[in-house]
Order: sequence, then structure tokens, then C-alpha cells
Amino acid sequence: MVSKIVECVPNFSEGRDLDKIEKIVQPLRGKENVKLLNYEADKDYNRVVVTVMGEPQAVKEAVLEAIGVATELIDLGVHEGQHSRMGATDVVPFIPIKNMTTEECVDLAKEMGQAIYDRYGVPVFLYEQAAATPARKNLAKIRKGQFEGMNEKMKEDQWKPDFGEAKIHETAGVTAVGARMPLVAYNIDLDTENVDIANKIARCIRHSNGGFRYIKAGGVKVEERGITQVTMNITDYTKTSVYRVFETVKMEAKRYGVNVLGSEIVGLVPMEALVDSAAYYLGLYGFSMDKVIEARLME
Amino acid sequence: MVSKIVECVPNFSEGRDLDKIEKIVQPLRGKENVKLLNYEADKDYNRVVVTVMGEPQAVKEAVLEAIGVATELIDLGVHEGQHSRMGATDVVPFIPIKNMTTEECVDLAKEMGQAIYDRYGVPVFLYEQAAATPARKNLAKIRKGQFEGMNEKMKEDQWKPDFGEAKIHETAGVTAVGARMPLVAYNIDLDTENVDIANKIARCIRHSNGGFRYIKAGGVKVEERGITQVTMNITDYTKTSVYRVFETVKMEAKRYGVNVLGSEIVGLVPMEALVDSAAYYLGLYGFSMDKVIEARLME
Repeated sequence: MVSKIVECVPNFSEGRDLDKIEKIVQPLRGKENVKLLNYEADKDYNRVVVTVMGEPQAVKEAVLEAIGVATELIDLGVHEGQHSRMGATDVVPFIPIKNMTTEECVDLAKEMGQAIYDRYGVPVFLYEQAAATPARKNLAKIRKGQFEGMNEKMKEDQWKPDFGEAKIHETAGVTAVGARMPLVAYNIDLDTENVDIANKIARCIRHSNGGFRYIKAGGVKVEERGITQVTMNITDYTKTSVYRVFETVKMEAKRYGVNVLGSEIVGLVPMEALVDSAAYYLGLYGFSMDKVIEARLME
Repeated sequence: MVSKIVECVPNFSEGRDLDKIEKIVQPLRGKENVKLLNYEADKDYNRVVVTVMGEPQAVKEAVLEAIGVATELIDLGVHEGQHSRMGATDVVPFIPIKNMTTEECVDLAKEMGQAIYDRYGVPVFLYEQAAATPARKNLAKIRKGQFEGMNEKMKEDQWKPDFGEAKIHETAGVTAVGARMPLVAYNIDLDTENVDIANKIARCIRHSNGGFRYIKAGGVKVEERGITQVTMNITDYTKTSVYRVFETVKMEAKRYGVNVLGSEIVGLVPMEALVDSAAYYLGLYGFSMDKVIEARLME
């Protein structure tokens, strides 16, 4: 039998109290067929982003346990942070890694949504590939209004949750559960303090302004380093390649006499996204991923 | 317990009779903790290069079985091919892949050498990291004289085999067993039919003529494509990077007004060798292999 591997990246709205964070991730440790790969707490955003991988049902059950702990420990009524949020468990995306389709991840997201409401009484929205309507695909639109405005928002017919009643959990708010392709969080450094230039370049490459189909991008200033960045998510790296975006940003930066200093992968990245860039720069012909030892071993 | 993974790449001196080749690789299929990754038969060389991976003892036993079949089926007395060879099973290198040291591969090579002589009566030389003396490190030196000259050669004190008597197996000759780092077989295409240029560039980059420490290289003509290649083995890609060799060959080719057309990975390549090149070209900072999902999953 072929073994399926899913990735799940739940975001919990606690980035400061390390003791609480440890308690939330505890159910993800030492479980059979579940691997806790990473968790990064951010104090400014006041949230923790957790990466787990493994056998789909085992991952679902373990994350469901962690959501139970988060529901108990986090009170959104007293939560402060820069990150727009609507729940103790804010989002739960499922990502197909091996021998899985997006459709199977959508099914998993639906099972998860039902279970979150049944077990903890937290209403759930389905988003991205799992969304019931096009309007709900975009997480930012679901989140709009945040915890504080969600009761009012859910009164509207079009914003009734997919699971549960149109009334927030008093302390844990609401949660969005979805399915999506693995994304690459990627930043490119510009040798300028002028964030207008970063923003202009971001507009050239992002989908919403006529750029690449799978790029969401913006400009940001990195004060302590005296530079700016084009910061982006590559939402399907198999169709919009990392090297293509990098070379395009270099090309656009020339227009302003600005140098590209380098770039940065944020969080985890699938091997294929980087191997594909190596193949481009080295002009590899007759190459395919099954020449990579690790790709063979993962089969 | 941490699971160890070894790679073994036995070369058998049969590249034309597909029926015999299938029989030789048969013992490598369907064994627990052993994965047959690849086998490529070459008609001109009249040999097959097999790649197996898995748990060290399981791999050793499975390859030993395959050697038994090769000993039975291949008669070096009637063997013809361009590839210099000395045995039905010509070479058996062990390569550390995960949670293994080169020393453990040396031990495995010694066990294998003893077993080959005990079971099949084929004398064995240890080479590369497993070599008993510096003179035996280099496989080409061991092979010199080939099957036909080996009885004479082994009469010399310095060329007594490491296992067995100084007398070839009548049909299966002798075998070299060794331990080495994973190597990358890599070719760079030059837009010229002049093999002198390929040879000159090969001399610039190879260790033996003052080039990079872990490069063995030569020039070859690829008649059917009207080009030449710098063909090489990168014997330690963690210290001599793929991109560095590629860029150096481009730089040297300029001297002759020759363009580099692209490059080619022969056989399998460890993910790290390519990811490292992507990191160079993208100017990635703060990057390490543990950001790669597959590297985490392999742990």
C-alpha cells in the first residue's frame, strides 16, 4: 500500500507565553505516524505557527487534540497582537505532500471542521480549496472583522459558518479550516530604504496587478538592516518557479538603479522548489526529480 | 533507534544480455529494508551499474546474492567491452547516506570482501576509503592489467588480494570492494567539436592538474550531437560544489570563445548537491538543509 503524507500548519493565537505554547504543541509529540516538524512563535503577531506532517488521520487526530488545548488556554477576549485573528485556533490548512490529491485534503478539512464544532463548540469556516463558495476562498475576506466583529458578521446570510451556529465561541472565537498547495514564503532583499520601490516591484510580480499567476506580494521596510524587501507567498511553486521570480525582481530593480542583495526562505520549503531552480541555473537537461536520491527514498 | 541507510553501487560486467541482467538484479527486488533504485546497462561498456539502498546488513546480504548470480552467469574469458574490467562483479562500493560514518562503510566493505571469497572463491581487493595501503586507494591502479593480466599482477607482493589467494576465479576474475562518499557524475556540454578544448578545460578543474580538490575530469567528444563535454566525477560535493565547477568551466570556456550549452547529471544525485547550488544562485541567506521538508522527513 502507498503511504499518504499530509502537512498541517495550524496557527494558534499565542506567541508570548512559552508555557502555554508548549502545552498546545504537546499532543503533537511522540504520536505514531505524526511528526512535529517546526513551531515558530512570534511575539509581535502574538501567534505560533506549527508544522506537522504524517499519515492523514493520525495528523488530524493529533491536531484536533492540540486545538482542544488551545481552546482551553487562549482567551481571545484579552488577546493583543499585530496579526489579524479571529480564533484561539485561527487557521488549519491541510497540504498534500505525498500520494495525496488536493481533493483528499478537502475531505480531511471537512472532517476536521465538523469535529472541531462537535468536540469544542467552535464554529468553522472552510477556505481556499475547501471553500463552499468563491467568496470564501480568500482567508483575508473570512478574517475581516476579526474576533471582535465576527458575531455581527455571521448574522449576514453569506457569512454563516460551514459548521456550527452563527455565534462565536465566547473565548475561542471561530476557526478557518482549509486545503491548499504547499506554499513557499519567500523574501527578496533590495539595497534601498525606499519602500515605494519595493512596493512598485511587488506590483509588477503579483497576480492581482498583472504579474505571475501564483504570487502574492508586497513591499516592506526592514528598519534594523536599512533595506527593504519584496515579501511574497508563492502559492504554487510548480507553476511559478522561484528562480523566475528572483530573476524578474532583479530585472525590475535595475529600472531604479537598485541592487538585489539576496533572498530568504521563510519556514520550510519543498525540495522540488529549490532543485528546480538549480536545474535552471545549471542548464540541466534530461533531468527529472526521480534522479534525486531523496525523492526515490520518499517513494 | 536511529535507522542507518547505506547505498551500494555494484558494477556487473554484463550490459548486453537483458535476460542475464534481470537474473542478476532479481535478488535485489522485494527484500525487506532493501530498495533497488536503478540499474543502467551500457552496451558499449558491456556492464550494468546497479544502485541499491537500505539497511546496511540487509543490503550487504542482497548484493551478495546478486554477486552469486553474476559469478555463475558471466564468463570474463569471453567478455568484450570498452570498459576496463577485472571481474564478473567488477566493483562494489558502499556509500554512507544517513546516520552512517565512512568508517562503518569500511567495516561493511571488509565483511563483504570476506564473504565474497568465502562463498564464491573470488579474490577481493579493498579500495578507496577501505584500502589497506595508499597505493590501493585508486581503483584505476587496482584494475590496471584487467582480467587478462591479473594472475601475473597478483604474483607481485604489493598486489596480493586482501581476501583470498593470489589467483583469479577462472571465469569471474577478481572483485574490488570499497567505501566512499557519494559522488556526483556530472557532464558539462561545450559548443565545440574540438576535444582539445574540452581536455584543456578538464585539466584546469581537476585535482591532478592543480584544480579543485574533489574533481576527476576529462574531455570527450559526443559525435552524434556534434559537441564535446567536460565529463567529471565530483567525489565530495559538500566541499567542491556543483555550481562552482559549472561557473569555472564557463569562465575557462570564454578563453576559447566557446559557449557552455548546459550540463547533465548522470545517474542519481543527493538532494543537497543541487539545493546548495540553488542557494548560491538565489543568494539565499540564513538557509540550511533543515529548512527543506524532505530533509526533515528523512531524519
